[in-house]
Amino acid sequence: MEQLNEVTPEMLNEVLIAANEAKFIANNLWLLVATVLVFIMHLGFATLEAGLVQKKNVVNILFKNVMIVSIGLISYYFVGFSLMYPGVNPGGFFGFAGFGLTPPEGGLTSAYGNYTYYTDFIFQGMFAATCCTIVSGAVAERIKLVPFLVFCTLFVTISYPITGMWKWGAGWLDAIGFYDFAGSTLVHSVGGWAALAGIILLGPRKGKYSKKGIKPIPGHSMPLAAIGVFLLWFGWFGFNGGSVLSADPASVSLVFVTTSLAAAAGALGAFLVSYLMFKSYDLSMVLNGILGGLVGITASADGVAIPSSLIIGLIAGCLIPLSVTFFDRMKLDDPVGATSVHLVCGIWGTIAVAIFGNYGEGVGTFYAQLIGVLAIGLFTFAFSFLLFYLLKIVFGIRVSSEEEVKGLDVEEHDLRAYAFN
Amino acid sequence: MEQLNEVTPEMLNEVLIAANEAKFIANNLWLLVATVLVFIMHLGFATLEAGLVQKKNVVNILFKNVMIVSIGLISYYFVGFSLMYPGVNPGGFFGFAGFGLTPPEGGLTSAYGNYTYYTDFIFQGMFAATCCTIVSGAVAERIKLVPFLVFCTLFVTISYPITGMWKWGAGWLDAIGFYDFAGSTLVHSVGGWAALAGIILLGPRKGKYSKKGIKPIPGHSMPLAAIGVFLLWFGWFGFNGGSVLSADPASVSLVFVTTSLAAAAGALGAFLVSYLMFKSYDLSMVLNGILGGLVGITASADGVAIPSSLIIGLIAGCLIPLSVTFFDRMKLDDPVGATSVHLVCGIWGTIAVAIFGNYGEGVGTFYAQLIGVLAIGLFTFAFSFLLFYLLKIVFGIRVSSEEEVKGLDVEEHDLRAYAFN
Amino acid sequence: MEQLNEVTPEMLNEVLIAANEAKFIANNLWLLVATVLVFIMHLGFATLEAGLVQKKNVVNILFKNVMIVSIGLISYYFVGFSLMYPGVNPGGFFGFAGFGLTPPEGGLTSAYGNYTYYTDFIFQGMFAATCCTIVSGAVAERIKLVPFLVFCTLFVTISYPITGMWKWGAGWLDAIGFYDFAGSTLVHSVGGWAALAGIILLGPRKGKYSKKGIKPIPGHSMPLAAIGVFLLWFGWFGFNGGSVLSADPASVSLVFVTTSLAAAAGALGAFLVSYLMFKSYDLSMVLNGILGGLVGITASADGVAIPSSLIIGLIAGCLIPLSVTFFDRMKLDDPVGATSVHLVCGIWGTIAVAIFGNYGEGVGTFYAQLIGVLAIGLFTFAFSFLLFYLLKIVFGIRVSSEEEVKGLDVEEHDLRAYAFN
Repeated sequence: MEQLNEVTPEMLNEVLIAANEAKFIANNLWLLVATVLVFIMHLGFATLEAGLVQKKNVVNILFKNVMIVSIGLISYYFVGFSLMYPGVNPGGFFGFAGFGLTPPEGGLTSAYGNYTYYTDFIFQGMFAATCCTIVSGAVAERIKLVPFLVFCTLFVTISYPITGMWKWGAGWLDAIGFYDFAGSTLVHSVGGWAALAGIILLGPRKGKYSKKGIKPIPGHSMPLAAIGVFLLWFGWFGFNGGSVLSADPASVSLVFVTTSLAAAAGALGAFLVSYLMFKSYDLSMVLNGILGGLVGITASADGVAIPSSLIIGLIAGCLIPLSVTFFDRMKLDDPVGATSVHLVCGIWGTIAVAIFGNYGEGVGTFYAQLIGVLAIGLFTFAFSFLLFYLLKIVFGIRVSSEEEVKGLDVEEHDLRAYAFN
Repeated sequence: MEQLNEVTPEMLNEVLIAANEAKFIANNLWLLVATVLVFIMHLGFATLEAGLVQKKNVVNILFKNVMIVSIGLISYYFVGFSLMYPGVNPGGFFGFAGFGLTPPEGGLTSAYGNYTYYTDFIFQGMFAATCCTIVSGAVAERIKLVPFLVFCTLFVTISYPITGMWKWGAGWLDAIGFYDFAGSTLVHSVGGWAALAGIILLGPRKGKYSKKGIKPIPGHSMPLAAIGVFLLWFGWFGFNGGSVLSADPASVSLVFVTTSLAAAAGALGAFLVSYLMFKSYDLSMVLNGILGGLVGITASADGVAIPSSLIIGLIAGCLIPLSVTFFDRMKLDDPVGATSVHLVCGIWGTIAVAIFGNYGEGVGTFYAQLIGVLAIGLFTFAFSFLLFYLLKIVFGIRVSSEEEVKGLDVEEHDLRAYAFN
Repeated sequence: MEQLNEVTPEMLNEVLIAANEAKFIANNLWLLVATVLVFIMHLGFATLEAGLVQKKNVVNILFKNVMIVSIGLISYYFVGFSLMYPGVNPGGFFGFAGFGLTPPEGGLTSAYGNYTYYTDFIFQGMFAATCCTIVSGAVAERIKLVPFLVFCTLFVTISYPITGMWKWGAGWLDAIGFYDFAGSTLVHSVGGWAALAGIILLGPRKGKYSKKGIKPIPGHSMPLAAIGVFLLWFGWFGFNGGSVLSADPASVSLVFVTTSLAAAAGALGAFLVSYLMFKSYDLSMVLNGILGGLVGITASADGVAIPSSLIIGLIAGCLIPLSVTFFDRMKLDDPVGATSVHLVCGIWGTIAVAIFGNYGEGVGTFYAQLIGVLAIGLFTFAFSFLLFYLLKIVFGIRVSSEEEVKGLDVEEHDLRAYAFN
């Protein structure tokens, strides 16, 4: 370059391209790392749910979690992704840009935004699969394997993407100002509504509710449950942090702080309220309190002041023991507390946007948030209830009484979770 | 800058340097993050293998896995790295650029490529250590500790780097167009061949094969096994994604999608075939199906269409129950199924490059892939067989019959895996 | 741009800003990823400690670890952060820039350095919470829950930030040339001194030391302990790698190599010395040897030659069995070996800076290192001893003899870790 005396605009432009390329690489990289973090949430759910069920149903719950992530990714590839983001796929509703033979033009360059088309798919695919994992815990210990997997496939293929499209696919909820940053409603309460439909149609586990009252059925391994919660918190840095959809330093770091403090405050809230209610230091409540805090902040992690994140998390944590007790009184048997964590705290988090969020005029109003909660709740609950109901009529969804007593591991899987003798 | 009226080429050049530095930082960062992900695969192997052995041999398998990563990194530092990448070390075959006193010139700047010399070493070192971990599962529950560690040391120091150099060190296999993106053959089937040699020389566990047929010896903890598989999938994002050797958005995101879908399809394949074969929902098959899918896609993750990745993974998953049954019929006792996962699916993945890969003229031909599989297989099997044989003659490689019955934990480690009473 | 004939300095400046923004994004991203890695160390500590205590106290140790990270983050937000880094908070000692309502000017842009104000807080907050986790293992199986949590809160709020400020807040130890890269002393031995104070005031577990000698009380689950150590090593890539405070490729990759090789050498050292001492392959020693190596290299990971990192780790590993035996002889009962790992190897690592470190004139001298070790040790031990002593007088810190025998899980938490029947 020393031979030249002049710098031309073309030369400058080349340097600008290099600078923008560097930004693109860094932004895309964060989305990929976030994908990896969201992936490990599947292990988080698997261990949490395995820890909270009885020893005789552990293989079954592991099997479900392993299949859900697999089925989820493949279903989302074939249909869900195109359905949820109508604009991104020139091939229409089905497939992944013409079944993945080639991504759309510009889809692998920075022209597409801060990440590539493949990055977009894999990040969103991990989210989608998460949704069913929420259901699996609530219906554990009594649902038949194959009908459950059929439910998951159709849920990820149809229901989750449709309600997702309403907001994230620039649909009608987006138009009225509904705001849900990373999915307190779009992911978590959606999973929670499906779980509730399943619980109602399945009925409680044998002996859970009787004239003698509510029988506690303790989970078989608290270390597994604790591993699950820590891994979920770990993954949530990707779930919320990645939802910034770039590595923008100010936004992602704010999200990290609000997410962490809400989780921490959730633990405190559950600790205090469960101590007042039960006079003991209840590990399972505190673990679910953390998750409640995380679910609660998910709708607004990018747009609240730090002290607000503490309050959102604290309230979510306080809701957990109350909600768990409430569902038990209603004889809605949820072995892992998924409806309390994902449905109740998901709704709370979505409403909290209207109270604490700073998103400018007309965005995240109380009205819009309420409409969003109701519309998505109604659609998802109706879809799930109908689908579970159809499966119940056609195949049956509950294992036999004998199988439930013996445990699903031996009957369905011919394998025990532990060979300890 | 406002004082100047002119922009000189030198000024432009400085800005270009800043832009390239930013790219370099992002590319190098991805390799480092990938290193961390590959590292955790060691925990994945440790928990998978611990879960699939009997309770009485758990401490032993954990001990081995802890030592392998330690010995592997140190051996690779002293010899393996220089041997595998002849060009990179001006200090010759031994040591790490003169035993690490200083990296080669330019080794810490972008002049070296997309990452520093230290990054290169630590990423490749994590790969190298992985190879022995594959062996440890297959020979579990009956091999003597010290001879096994001696085997690992020499294997990582000599055998793995030599065959690795043939391709990744720009050796003769590279010259004939053999393609193996992240090591279906160079890492996985290499580990598989060594495992096979060990299995043959050790013989099966007591009572595994008798006149009464094949005795199932179930693993002691399915949660541990499932944790292992999820962590391996998690780490594989770094194993395959990092093998792009930059954070190039198009390539890395493609690799993430092909890798994930192959894993998911592997689960489906194993699910279906094992159900047809055994009429049960077999968790261990599905877990190994995921690993089979991952091993299968490893050779071509950067160069196949998305639907091809599904097919590669599906076939790999289908191979798992067939292969496990086959090895059992051959009375080759592999407690964790490592030969099926890493050897069989590693060969399949390498051949699949010739069927599905898009690498241009003369690269990844069927001929080249076959030569690669055979040459590396022959060398590795011969090396491993000889080394195990020598160790057998000199020290003995199998524990006493009494020790095998009592378990290796009490006899070799004076410690039980669980104190549950 | 093609319309223009000339490139103005303003145009060049805009491109320079884009290039610098790209660097800022990448640097900040690494700090955030490192934060996630340090976070998971809390799961590492939780599983390590849970694995090494008796089955009857597992829920209690999990509960503590879950609460510590939560309390730690919140305390550090309210006071610790401002106290430790006096310059960063214009709001004074309390709160997080006026209790977090707004970060200081420039705090979300590159003007602040290589990361945002929020990134700084969350990365340092994860460090702070780590410190108490070290204590929880040492005082396990006999300390009362609430006094312990009160101790943690005050320790993270006051003691840890004050000694931290002496060096990292540009205080007097920094001025005399004391060097401690990522906290061999500032984090690890600080935790170790607090642990020692707790151990002394609590006394040993019932029956541990009697006229018959030292009774071994084996941990209840070696898989959990091994998971813990692997996760800690995993997290240490963020702990040490993030302490570079940028993604500078040369520095971070050097830190990755020195950290990994020190951990590996720590395993070897503990393997050899424990074999010589006990004639068995002692898993718990090797696991603690890895941790010892990691703690040892933490003070100098960015400034030693590679072979020096091997020596530092090897010596740290050798120290572990000697130190564990020593503390047992002194009747200082530490169920998980935290004082050996964090205090002894923390001191060794800090002194090693003076022997192996390359930090230029007047930095890391033997004198400065010794002063640092002594001053921080004295302050922390005195603070912890007094605080534990006050708690002992006011509330009592030890559970009743009956509760200790029955286990803390049933008495304090009304929950068993495992429901295996």
